[in-house]
Amino acid sequence: MAVYKAPIRDMQFVLHELLDAERSFAELPGGDEASADIIDAILEEGAKLCENVIFPTNRTGDIEGCRFDNGEVYTPSGFKQAYDAITAGGWTALACDPEYGGQGLPHTLSVFIEEMLQSCNMSLALYQGLTRGAYVAIHAHGTDELKRKFLPKLVDGSWSGVMCLTESHAGTDLGLLRTRATPDADGSYRVSGSKIFITGGDQDLTENIVHLVLARLPDAPAGVKGISMFLVPKFLVNDDGTLGERNTVSCGSIEHKMGIKGASTCVMNYDNAVGYLVGEPHRGLRAMFSMMNHERLMVGQEGLAQAEVAYQSAVAYARERIQGRALSGVKSPDKPADPILVHPDVRRMLLTGKAYNEAARALLGWVSLNVDVSERHPDDHAREHADDLVSLLTPVVKAFFTDYGSEVCNLSLQVFGGHGYIGEWGMEQLVRDARIAQIYEGANGIHALDLTGRKLSMHNGRLVKRYLKILNSFLADQSGDAALEEFIEPLAGAVASLDTATRWVAEAGKRNPEEIGAASYDYMRLMALVSFGYMWARTAVIATKKLPGDNSGFYQTKLTTARFFMKRLLPQTEALEKSLRAGSDSLMDLPAESF
Amino acid sequence: MAVYKAPIRDMQFVLHELLDAERSFAELPGGDEASADIIDAILEEGAKLCENVIFPTNRTGDIEGCRFDNGEVYTPSGFKQAYDAITAGGWTALACDPEYGGQGLPHTLSVFIEEMLQSCNMSLALYQGLTRGAYVAIHAHGTDELKRKFLPKLVDGSWSGVMCLTESHAGTDLGLLRTRATPDADGSYRVSGSKIFITGGDQDLTENIVHLVLARLPDAPAGVKGISMFLVPKFLVNDDGTLGERNTVSCGSIEHKMGIKGASTCVMNYDNAVGYLVGEPHRGLRAMFSMMNHERLMVGQEGLAQAEVAYQSAVAYARERIQGRALSGVKSPDKPADPILVHPDVRRMLLTGKAYNEAARALLGWVSLNVDVSERHPDDHAREHADDLVSLLTPVVKAFFTDYGSEVCNLSLQVFGGHGYIGEWGMEQLVRDARIAQIYEGANGIHALDLTGRKLSMHNGRLVKRYLKILNSFLADQSGDAALEEFIEPLAGAVASLDTATRWVAEAGKRNPEEIGAASYDYMRLMALVSFGYMWARTAVIATKKLPGDNSGFYQTKLTTARFFMKRLLPQTEALEKSLRAGSDSLMDLPAESF
Repeated sequence: MAVYKAPIRDMQFVLHELLDAERSFAELPGGDEASADIIDAILEEGAKLCENVIFPTNRTGDIEGCRFDNGEVYTPSGFKQAYDAITAGGWTALACDPEYGGQGLPHTLSVFIEEMLQSCNMSLALYQGLTRGAYVAIHAHGTDELKRKFLPKLVDGSWSGVMCLTESHAGTDLGLLRTRATPDADGSYRVSGSKIFITGGDQDLTENIVHLVLARLPDAPAGVKGISMFLVPKFLVNDDGTLGERNTVSCGSIEHKMGIKGASTCVMNYDNAVGYLVGEPHRGLRAMFSMMNHERLMVGQEGLAQAEVAYQSAVAYARERIQGRALSGVKSPDKPADPILVHPDVRRMLLTGKAYNEAARALLGWVSLNVDVSERHPDDHAREHADDLVSLLTPVVKAFFTDYGSEVCNLSLQVFGGHGYIGEWGMEQLVRDARIAQIYEGANGIHALDLTGRKLSMHNGRLVKRYLKILNSFLADQSGDAALEEFIEPLAGAVASLDTATRWVAEAGKRNPEEIGAASYDYMRLMALVSFGYMWARTAVIATKKLPGDNSGFYQTKLTTARFFMKRLLPQTEALEKSLRAGSDSLMDLPAESF
Repeated sequence: MAVYKAPIRDMQFVLHELLDAERSFAELPGGDEASADIIDAILEEGAKLCENVIFPTNRTGDIEGCRFDNGEVYTPSGFKQAYDAITAGGWTALACDPEYGGQGLPHTLSVFIEEMLQSCNMSLALYQGLTRGAYVAIHAHGTDELKRKFLPKLVDGSWSGVMCLTESHAGTDLGLLRTRATPDADGSYRVSGSKIFITGGDQDLTENIVHLVLARLPDAPAGVKGISMFLVPKFLVNDDGTLGERNTVSCGSIEHKMGIKGASTCVMNYDNAVGYLVGEPHRGLRAMFSMMNHERLMVGQEGLAQAEVAYQSAVAYARERIQGRALSGVKSPDKPADPILVHPDVRRMLLTGKAYNEAARALLGWVSLNVDVSERHPDDHAREHADDLVSLLTPVVKAFFTDYGSEVCNLSLQVFGGHGYIGEWGMEQLVRDARIAQIYEGANGIHALDLTGRKLSMHNGRLVKRYLKILNSFLADQSGDAALEEFIEPLAGAVASLDTATRWVAEAGKRNPEEIGAASYDYMRLMALVSFGYMWARTAVIATKKLPGDNSGFYQTKLTTARFFMKRLLPQTEALEKSLRAGSDSLMDLPAESF
């Protein structure tokens, strides 16, 4: 069976030891409220809710799925109660603006609670995660009136928010979209069109649903420069904040999907529906990206979160399931066979999960801290530096976390043998659920291209130069320490590969723009592995210092896992560098008709 | 939507050009009947059946699944008609012994028909594939009476055969199994016990089902040396071949699985059921391996077969779906966007499928020809050589084909973006169906261990030495040909890696047996990539010769795809060599409680 305990100790390691969160938070306005005690208490309370209330709804949600009946969407049984427990505990308000009822805590803290929620029920967590995205967009771009009217309800979770981008002919290429908005005399707009793949487009969890819809104004230029964003509520809202009449927003059908069956995926129809402009006309993509940058990190985290529960479940199974004997001799002479955890290849699968998950958690913690700094730090220079790092690493988190997440879910399923393939064991659900994260919020190939095509060239390469500087400074600081050499030396090789690949892409891309696309996926993976290696090396520095006198085994485990990463996973970087340097001809030479 | 056309031209390339099948078959007794014309006619007729009759049943089978009602199993609608079309066409008899109604054609030919069947409906093909395995075991180890009574019905497909190994506590570790058999006065046995995960254990396609059950005799030694094989028919068979009374064999339930929902996966109960010994007492594993070696190649082929239909479907979608513009400028100015096939990263995903699939088809063709030679060639030495190759490469085919098959199904799904995740498009079914092939017939980790632990050391390393000799002779033959250098040089590097890794494993394994397990998965992948590289290099040799004067583009496409493989996929070998040489400490150092 799938099992889950929130990895609180590892979260504490990232927050307190790797990020020195208390001190880092104290540099931010209002951040001194997040003391170490508060942080720990929040993690522990969040864990209780997730393990006891949310996790039990995951399998039911998969079996029942959402139901579409007479134009209304019903979530699986238990979802409403679980959702209410989340809102009642104030968990939706954690990192929101106190002006609208939020608790004003750092994003870096709430992100760990989100991991727990996602591990315990990815479908359910989506409703709340998308609401958070809508909150971010309205908070950044909405008028004061819209903020006053809608944000408090999104913060307390009594209303949800959803994003409505995709149309059947316009997925990645939003420039093709056709939904129209016409101005009304009262300053509002009338929105008409049809959207597909709208997660949470309708549901029975909240009183109201706030749709952020991309559409074209009558005078809109063609393409992506003619897209505006509109807030279209399911129920209109009276001036006193009470709900008014039903808007002409309707769900046409829901999709039957491979996974995340507890999350409704809706065809949404807007039939002259009342909407309100968010941000400036024709600048809807800008508003959308505020939301999407948050959601890209969230979707990346879904990869980690599914991989975490998959890993934990596989470890539990590998300890209990007895089958065969250790190659080096019997380990459990009192039993008819040894636990399969004795087999090196089972350990390979498990350690891959452990090494990726812990590096991902550390990396996302670091990126999240930079999100907080980029939004709240008083110093311009610090904000810019942090923003550069977030911009550069967001596509890496989205694409690589979700790729490795699927890989680890599959490896964990494999540990279960035939039982992994049977529904009741819960492992195949994780594989099916995790699979969507590689696709939605922009297919992973698009994020790889965002990295190599946009982020590398932004500000004349400043983002990647700064990142390489961080990496090289770290290497320089640790050089000469014999105890760390086994971690620093392989990382140095991988950083050199990344440096070479970065220069190669910049050069080749000038000659031929196809080179950027041809190199993109390998480059994204290369940067991800280097970043994971950096997290493991930083972890090793701390663990080496704390090892003497530690009786818990925690730091020894960190060092052993870091070694596994350096020896068994990081070597992929060499193949990636070689593959991307093969150039675009290897991909572009085949005529379309010859595939 | 998923689409499929049997890849006849590529199959002809493998049979006629790569394997020179007509001449090779002529060396085998009776093999001269398989002339080039006959081969082509069989491929074309098989393709018609599969495309028109079998393929349409695939999606229905997934939606409906099997049904268990009142002790009986019902396959999805359409399966019985499709199965009958297979048997009516004589397709089950293709490579069977004429003495029992078979057509006596080479296995190397029937294997291509099996690929088509598996592409078109993996679940349905399983019933027939397992019957073939049972045929092989009974043919090799059954008494004359058993053969006379059962084989003709397995050959014509009116009865099916299934293998019954796994018990709930005994999967990989068959030594733990508990099913018992006691001798009866009439020379038959009474079998009692319960088996799980029995594919096709019950179904409504055939008049009778022949269970090959592993069980222990009363005097059996403990462990795997005390296992015997029994033929237990669902219905007893009278001396005149008609069906007698129902045996005490019953299906207890069926599993709800991730995929292959049209294939029944049964809990089977044997309650003092009448059975007949197959082979010698306590030598059941030997009989089982006759069957399993056939079935391991078949399961490997399932990976290829699913990847083929996934690849073809993704290509069709990538040609039609328009989204975004080519990086090098607009390609379809008359349309609002270019087909996504213009994007380098979409091509990366598609070419990965194409390059793996065609190499896999070639390799399996070559291995199958060696199966025929090992079984039928008049010369002892030729038989031994062929058998060595089959033994060595069977675990590679089973494990790597199914791994890459899942990878390619996932990449192909990814090409569809969000639509890939929706059931009606058919892509997510391929991912779910393909996933089982990495698990059943021995989880892939076991095959990797079979390769490094058993096959490498067999006959003092003769198998791998002979294979390396084949590879090195090929390299030597082609060296100095400038036109081939781009293929030969990277292959030579990969062969050198395989050679080094082979020596390393042999040395390290002597010091510490855990090293063999720790190296196994990387080693298996390394040998697979080298073997695929060898197939691409052999293909390139032929294509280079035939290129002048060819107007079809076929040989140019082969060369372009070979280049992609060498540049973009083969470099993984370096990382694999490095990872396996990291040694077992990286896997074994972590104490069990620290996972």
